[in-house]
Amino acid sequence: MGKSYEQIQVGDQGHFEKTITETDIYLFAGITGDLNPAHVNQRVAESSMFKGRIAHGMLSAGLISAVLGMYLPGPGTIYLSQNLKFMAPVYIGDTIKAVAEVIEKMEKGRVRLKTTCYNQDGKIVLDGEAVVIAPKESC
Amino acid sequence: MGKSYEQIQVGDQGHFEKTITETDIYLFAGITGDLNPAHVNQRVAESSMFKGRIAHGMLSAGLISAVLGMYLPGPGTIYLSQNLKFMAPVYIGDTIKAVAEVIEKMEKGRVRLKTTCYNQDGKIVLDGEAVVIAPKESC
Amino acid sequence: MGKSYEQIQVGDQGHFEKTITETDIYLFAGITGDLNPAHVNQRVAESSMFKGRIAHGMLSAGLISAVLGMYLPGPGTIYLSQNLKFMAPVYIGDTIKAVAEVIEKMEKGRVRLKTTCYNQDGKIVLDGEAVVIAPKESC
Amino acid sequence: MGKSYEQIQVGDQGHFEKTITETDIYLFAGITGDLNPAHVNQRVAESSMFKGRIAHGMLSAGLISAVLGMYLPGPGTIYLSQNLKFMAPVYIGDTIKAVAEVIEKMEKGRVRLKTTCYNQDGKIVLDGEAVVIAPKESC
Repeated sequence: MGKSYEQIQVGDQGHFEKTITETDIYLFAGITGDLNPAHVNQRVAESSMFKGRIAHGMLSAGLISAVLGMYLPGPGTIYLSQNLKFMAPVYIGDTIKAVAEVIEKMEKGRVRLKTTCYNQDGKIVLDGEAVVIAPKESC
Repeated sequence: MGKSYEQIQVGDQGHFEKTITETDIYLFAGITGDLNPAHVNQRVAESSMFKGRIAHGMLSAGLISAVLGMYLPGPGTIYLSQNLKFMAPVYIGDTIKAVAEVIEKMEKGRVRLKTTCYNQDGKIVLDGEAVVIAPKESC
Repeated sequence: MGKSYEQIQVGDQGHFEKTITETDIYLFAGITGDLNPAHVNQRVAESSMFKGRIAHGMLSAGLISAVLGMYLPGPGTIYLSQNLKFMAPVYIGDTIKAVAEVIEKMEKGRVRLKTTCYNQDGKIVLDGEAVVIAPKESC
Repeated sequence: MGKSYEQIQVGDQGHFEKTITETDIYLFAGITGDLNPAHVNQRVAESSMFKGRIAHGMLSAGLISAVLGMYLPGPGTIYLSQNLKFMAPVYIGDTIKAVAEVIEKMEKGRVRLKTTCYNQDGKIVLDGEAVVIAPKESC
C-alpha cells in the first residue's frame, strides 16, 4: 500500500471507483450542511438544467482524496493543494472512477498529480491537479 | 434565500459554521472511501506529525460548497471550479467557519469568490477561490 | 440569516423543502428507536391501509424545526411549543415543503407561527402551530 | 407487543429510554436540514443561554413516537396528533425516557395519551398529549 517519494515515478497511476448512491448524497448533505435543492429536492432538481438530483462536486473530489491518501502516494501523504474543475453532473447510480497520475516530482518531497474523475461512460466529470508531500517511507 | 447575478455585488459575504465531529469524519470516510489512517486510525495518527486523527480536507471544502449552494449565491448556483490550499489540520471538535466573499463579477453570469475556512481560533485551515454561475433569479 | 423579534412582521414566511428518501426514514428509525413496521417493514406495510412504508410524522415535523431554527426566525430562536396534526402519509420519494408563517407577535419576544407541510402535489401532510421566542438580534 | 383498542385501559403505560449521542444529533440535523448552531456549533452554543450544543426537540419527540408505534398501543397505531411543550434542553449524553400513559378512550377507536420525556435526573424535558387510533387487533 502506497509509495514513498523515492519509489514514485512520473507516470505512476492510482485509482478508486465507486457507485454513488442516494444515501451517499444525503449523508454528504448532512455532514457539510449543503442541502442545496440540486442535491436533495427532486421537484426542484428535475426542473433544472440537470433534470434531476445530482451529487455534490466535493463528493467526487473526495474520491480523489481517497486515491491520494490510500494508494498513491498512500498513507502518510500530506495534502497541500487541489484544483478542481466540475465538468459534468454526477447522478444517483453513476459509477465514478477517480484516477491520479504523477506528472512531476518536485523538490522537498512534493509530487504533482493529474487528478480526474470519470463516469461509467468514460466522460470526465471532474478534472484538476493535486500537490502532495509523499511519505519518506511507504507504510 | 440567495442572490441573483444582478443582485450580487463585489464584497458580498456568506458563511456557514459547524463543529466537526468524529461522526462527520467517519461518515465522510465511508462515503468517499478515504479511510486513510490520518482520519480513522488513532494509533497511527497520534504518532504522525499531526498527533491525532484529522478531518479530511475535502470535508472542510464541503462547508464552502454549502455556503455557495445555500447562501451566496445560493440555490440555483452552478459550481464551475474551486482551488483549495490545505493550510492547517482540522481536529475532532474544531468549529470551522467557511466564508465566501465575492471578489469579481465576470461575464456570462460568472462570479469569482474568495473562499476561506477558519477554525475557532481564527486560524485559516483552508484557502482558495471558487468560480460559479450565479442564478439569473434568486430562489 | 434569520430575523429578530423587532424585524418580524405578521405574514412573514420561511420555508424548506426536501425529498424524503428511504435512507432518511431508516436513519430516523435508528435515532429515535421507532422501528414501527409502518416505517421499516415493507411486507407488513404493503398490507396496511397505507399500502407501503411511510415516513415518521416526526420526520416531517423536523423540517418545520429546520425552518424555525434556520430561516424564520432563524439562529437564536428558542422553541417553546408545537402542535401537530398528521393529515396524510408521506411516502419514500415524496418532496415535502415545510412552511412557517408568522400569525401573531406576542409579549416577551414570543411569536406564533402557522406551520404546514405540503407534499409535491400540494396536499397538506402536516398542520399545526408553533410558539417560539425570537432572537433579540438576528445572527 | 402492543395492545388493541379493546385491550387498552386508562392508566396503561409504555416507555422507551435512550442515551442521546452527538451522532444522533448530527444525523438528525442532516435528515431534517436543521443545522441550527444550537445543535451543531459548539462555539456559538457555548455562549448561548444553554451553554452548549443541545438536541433537537423533535428528536425527543421521536422517542414518544417510538413508544406509541412500538409498545402502546404499538404496531398498527395511526398517529393523529401530538402537542409538544419543550420544557428543558437535552444535552449530548443525556439519557431520555419517553413515557406514554393512556388518559382517555375516545370514540372510533381513538385513544388520548399523556406523553412525557424525562432526563436522567427525572426532570421533564418534553411534555404533551397524543391522540392515536389504536389497532383493532394487537400485532
